Amino acid sequence: MTHPKWYLPADRYFDPDPAQRRIARELYDSVSHLPLVCPHGHVDPRLFSDEEAVFGTPTELLIIPDHYVFRMLYSQGVPMESLGIPRVDGGPVEQDYRKIWQVFAENFYLFRGTPSGIWLSNELHEVFGVEEKLTGSTGQAIYDQIAEKLATAQFRPRALFQRFNIEVLCTTDAATDTLAHHRAIRESGWQGRIIPTFRPDAVVNIDTRGWRKNIQGLSEVSGIEVGSYRAFIQALENRRAYFIGEGTKATDHAALTAYTGELPERETEAIFQRALKGQGTAEDATRFTGHMLMENARMSIEDGLVMQLHCGSYRNHNQFVFERFGRDKGADIPVQVEFTRNLHPLLNRYGNDTRLTLILFNLDETTYSRELATLAGHYPAVKLGPPWWFHDSPNGMMRYFQQVTETAGLHNTVGFNDDTRAFPSIPARHDLWRRVGANWIAGLVVRGIVDMDDAAEMSQDIAYRLAKKAYKL
Amino acid sequence: MTHPKWYLPADRYFDPDPAQRRIARELYDSVSHLPLVCPHGHVDPRLFSDEEAVFGTPTELLIIPDHYVFRMLYSQGVPMESLGIPRVDGGPVEQDYRKIWQVFAENFYLFRGTPSGIWLSNELHEVFGVEEKLTGSTGQAIYDQIAEKLATAQFRPRALFQRFNIEVLCTTDAATDTLAHHRAIRESGWQGRIIPTFRPDAVVNIDTRGWRKNIQGLSEVSGIEVGSYRAFIQALENRRAYFIGEGTKATDHAALTAYTGELPERETEAIFQRALKGQGTAEDATRFTGHMLMENARMSIEDGLVMQLHCGSYRNHNQFVFERFGRDKGADIPVQVEFTRNLHPLLNRYGNDTRLTLILFNLDETTYSRELATLAGHYPAVKLGPPWWFHDSPNGMMRYFQQVTETAGLHNTVGFNDDTRAFPSIPARHDLWRRVGANWIAGLVVRGIVDMDDAAEMSQDIAYRLAKKAYKL
Amino acid sequence: MTHPKWYLPADRYFDPDPAQRRIARELYDSVSHLPLVCPHGHVDPRLFSDEEAVFGTPTELLIIPDHYVFRMLYSQGVPMESLGIPRVDGGPVEQDYRKIWQVFAENFYLFRGTPSGIWLSNELHEVFGVEEKLTGSTGQAIYDQIAEKLATAQFRPRALFQRFNIEVLCTTDAATDTLAHHRAIRESGWQGRIIPTFRPDAVVNIDTRGWRKNIQGLSEVSGIEVGSYRAFIQALENRRAYFIGEGTKATDHAALTAYTGELPERETEAIFQRALKGQGTAEDATRFTGHMLMENARMSIEDGLVMQLHCGSYRNHNQFVFERFGRDKGADIPVQVEFTRNLHPLLNRYGNDTRLTLILFNLDETTYSRELATLAGHYPAVKLGPPWWFHDSPNGMMRYFQQVTETAGLHNTVGFNDDTRAFPSIPARHDLWRRVGANWIAGLVVRGIVDMDDAAEMSQDIAYRLAKKAYKL
Repeated sequence: MTHPKWYLPADRYFDPDPAQRRIARELYDSVSHLPLVCPHGHVDPRLFSDEEAVFGTPTELLIIPDHYVFRMLYSQGVPMESLGIPRVDGGPVEQDYRKIWQVFAENFYLFRGTPSGIWLSNELHEVFGVEEKLTGSTGQAIYDQIAEKLATAQFRPRALFQRFNIEVLCTTDAATDTLAHHRAIRESGWQGRIIPTFRPDAVVNIDTRGWRKNIQGLSEVSGIEVGSYRAFIQALENRRAYFIGEGTKATDHAALTAYTGELPERETEAIFQRALKGQGTAEDATRFTGHMLMENARMSIEDGLVMQLHCGSYRNHNQFVFERFGRDKGADIPVQVEFTRNLHPLLNRYGNDTRLTLILFNLDETTYSRELATLAGHYPAVKLGPPWWFHDSPNGMMRYFQQVTETAGLHNTVGFNDDTRAFPSIPARHDLWRRVGANWIAGLVVRGIVDMDDAAEMSQDIAYRLAKKAYKL
Repeated sequence: MTHPKWYLPADRYFDPDPAQRRIARELYDSVSHLPLVCPHGHVDPRLFSDEEAVFGTPTELLIIPDHYVFRMLYSQGVPMESLGIPRVDGGPVEQDYRKIWQVFAENFYLFRGTPSGIWLSNELHEVFGVEEKLTGSTGQAIYDQIAEKLATAQFRPRALFQRFNIEVLCTTDAATDTLAHHRAIRESGWQGRIIPTFRPDAVVNIDTRGWRKNIQGLSEVSGIEVGSYRAFIQALENRRAYFIGEGTKATDHAALTAYTGELPERETEAIFQRALKGQGTAEDATRFTGHMLMENARMSIEDGLVMQLHCGSYRNHNQFVFERFGRDKGADIPVQVEFTRNLHPLLNRYGNDTRLTLILFNLDETTYSRELATLAGHYPAVKLGPPWWFHDSPNGMMRYFQQVTETAGLHNTVGFNDDTRAFPSIPARHDLWRRVGANWIAGLVVRGIVDMDDAAEMSQDIAYRLAKKAYKL
Repeated sequence: MTHPKWYLPADRYFDPDPAQRRIARELYDSVSHLPLVCPHGHVDPRLFSDEEAVFGTPTELLIIPDHYVFRMLYSQGVPMESLGIPRVDGGPVEQDYRKIWQVFAENFYLFRGTPSGIWLSNELHEVFGVEEKLTGSTGQAIYDQIAEKLATAQFRPRALFQRFNIEVLCTTDAATDTLAHHRAIRESGWQGRIIPTFRPDAVVNIDTRGWRKNIQGLSEVSGIEVGSYRAFIQALENRRAYFIGEGTKATDHAALTAYTGELPERETEAIFQRALKGQGTAEDATRFTGHMLMENARMSIEDGLVMQLHCGSYRNHNQFVFERFGRDKGADIPVQVEFTRNLHPLLNRYGNDTRLTLILFNLDETTYSRELATLAGHYPAVKLGPPWWFHDSPNGMMRYFQQVTETAGLHNTVGFNDDTRAFPSIPARHDLWRRVGANWIAGLVVRGIVDMDDAAEMSQDIAYRLAKKAYKL
């Protein structure tokens, strides 16, 4: 190996100033071995319900399911078919995984300076022991090395879960999910803690494709005939109770905007009936979603589930890609979001209630210092989620700390979410957060803003304690 | 004392690089002893009109009147009643000031990394000589120490004014204010310069609560029966002249948006009459405010008063808090602001007139590089106020310098405003500005963008000269 | 000379940390001698078609044509007439160029910390050999020194073009331009490569002043009677073909917003006919521009011209200045821009076509991480232009690298544009970009994000290769 450990210097992601770096290193060392708390993500529980589950080839593990990876290749003109991304119509796509890997290896330079590049480099090195840089010429040897590892028992999902030192992993699950895999994990006697999160979007947002089918599913799984708005609410409450019985601590809601507003029951019923008949309008959908956010806040106050709200992703922006390859293919594009006026109805009704925890996420960083930090720094119910999606990166995290904390304080934030479906990337993501966080705090120390005692507490908070506390884990 | 002066390192708020830090220190030292120019703030002039005035207990001085402090505690679930915040209905709130102080001390860790934490630490140390960190265990001893100081003559407002080396302090005063306290200060023979600022919002914005009562007050104080728009304008001009006679140099205007637009007199009269009858609409209010901004610009050109405009705060966002505790309780939340189109009418009418100084403030930092710097870098009348409110912080100031100066240049900015009602925090706020400013300029020097001669001039400008010049002090 | 080379330290614009600075210097040194690729700008080709062309006096070269310079002086109350800016009505303006220069020299301190200050300092030193700082007292001697140089053959445009090591310079030319000067340059036998860019705004945007006259010009120059929408399209295609014959590689389009949307031919024809009669509405103009952006994308796919789109400048904001002095007088003010929804029609129609290169520019930095980086990081057709106009500055460039690259990757950006009409400032602008870029990459190296091999490649990319590749030069 010509460049041993080339890409993983011990002081990576720290500012170069020696004084700041020394402190950052000290703070990082004090938290680097803490267990990982993963309160929000998209890992498939089936990986853990079957003790024998495996990850497949390197390409099936690291390329085909990761839209961060193939969107970059696609943006440079590499057709998705040539990367083995399955077509909706089952049409032919590349099946030679070594060939796909080679394309990836030859184009790995595209990820210079990106978080995907950071995660992948860390993952290759720390998880798979790769000590060379991925390029066209090293690609096949690295493929062999990973494939060899993946064939061993130590690289099955449960073994990695334990090696990664994960204390708890929350999945994201539809309201209609039976949670059979979560139950199977529990009943298997295996000690890994994997708990579901209640995400009712597909039944709550009436403009979801297949909504009527989803409502039928909701009727079946809840045993409540969902023929009316009132029955719909009952069915949701029924499912929340069921999820809580399976260990759930939180709900998750996605909306294009942060619009909230209560509707009179007469109107909710009318909208619901129109939707059941397939006659709902775009305005119906917006108003119903805004109303249901308020209903879910009420339910959270009653049943104690933490409420997460993710706003501002324009899903499936690329119609061609959506029709050929389906959703989650790297074509979700952020839009501006407004919170001050849009959340006013919800916060005026429930924002002063200390039983509610409403965690806000969005992709519009302009709201950090203007709206999110000021709302979280006042309302007892509001907390801020970590930098989301594209902003889960060195600069994205630093902007977040610098723009949020002065006004909101650290204790109105909730630590880290890895928010990933790429299970083997979890340690790399937490490591990046802990390092960038330690570096930010070290920057406060060298500027005389906090002392080392405070800094040590803050490091524990962001690496471990805030997430555990906010999500009641 | 185990940590003597722990939180006030001599090089605080400077970047850690030794070269930059050495220059920052040199620049800071060259301005740290300059008198404080305070062109905009909310200190109560009654503190100075009565020679015997005192500040009360530590809790009455540092917690109860400071919404920066109690909003943070409230956001973490501490009820405002338990902090002694007076209720609008006079209902019971905590009266044990030592107990309130103890809650504050135990929660002081919430302010880590916040400007409130910085100001309070500086204030405790520099003003009151406290040499320990505020915690639950040191809280009562520190309370005693402060209370003891506050009981002495050296800690009366006038004595601190002189100790703080304040050259001039501008208050903010309603159009209907008689300025009796300012007059009393002047007539007392005391040498402190405390001058009023004309803020006509409560009579100009027809949607102000109690507007009709305010108009009655305007009639009384001006001696002009304000029964028509024309009389209203006369009364305002009368009050401006009166304020000028009392030393006033500036006006101040608050508006949710930056909307400006001239109305024909027929319409202004109709709106004014509707408002007098309590029949004004929301649209009337918006249009009237937009018109009155233009009228005030015209008056400023005629009488020479500098015009300040503060935009973008959604006041009293929390209805529950507003009804129970009233205004200015930490529940004002920023909104997006648009200047390019909204100020077009005003700037096209008056923006080329060198007799006008229009100083713009807002809470939406996205406008810094996009709109504010470009407007100030072209129109002779436009200047930019310093980072406002939540942004009066180390990162807020640095973003301001970095996003504004390249396009606007330093001479289209107006130095610093402390903008506070917390009198004893004034030196801490100016110190932070002077230090962050020196550090920013030092960053330009080490990058070879300005030389030390330029840097020394720029330091004088931001610490002292620009404010004095822009506000004609 | 008392301050030899005072303002041009060898390590200028680099971070002060010694480790980062050493690497930045190494990276910069590896690209500083590469030829300049100038794919977008506004230099007048007549400077080069006549071998004997000269620049005039220092004032005519550096002040009168440079709206960056005189807008700053105007913002501080210096009348444009006193700076010799020509009036539209031909009225009297200052003609004493030494006197104008003296005003500039006395006010040169206004440019401290601005990119204009950086460019001018570099230009005075590197191009004209000035070794003193420009002030009121050095002004006249520096004027003499520059004037003396300008009188020599080495300071004629063609000589400087070669001394500047410009590989290719793209101008910006109206659709109706005959390109006579470009042809003359080519036919002169001189080796400098200066090629036109097709900018059809004045015939495409029907609300342009003088649009009907421009359409007449289009008829004449194309030989196609433009009496219908269909003929209009033919004439445009005709002109594109002509430009391509003269070496053109790209088109350029300006629009206030990024609105796109296809109209049925019936509507385009109706709008076109209304416009020909002078009866077009504002809505007509918006819709027609949005439609024509799509038409131009289609044409680019067919003829291979790279398509540039510059959005978000509110032109001629100051009516008084526009009427007295005309366009491009420092009074263009940015507005917010929205891309995700506005470009949806165009990208859904053409965004997946690898034959299209659509390069996006705008002045609203909030779109960098939110919209532009995510669109460029997905759509094969989309690339991001460098920081535009006011953001072509040390902080502007650093914000761009930090906010764009993590999501878009470097290869979805297009290197640098100097975008200037100030020919002698071209080397200073490229030098700033190369230095800030080297410093940014060095920051990635010291943080362990990329290694030196990657860093060297990235430096070549941003300094030279990306621009050449994206613009097909």
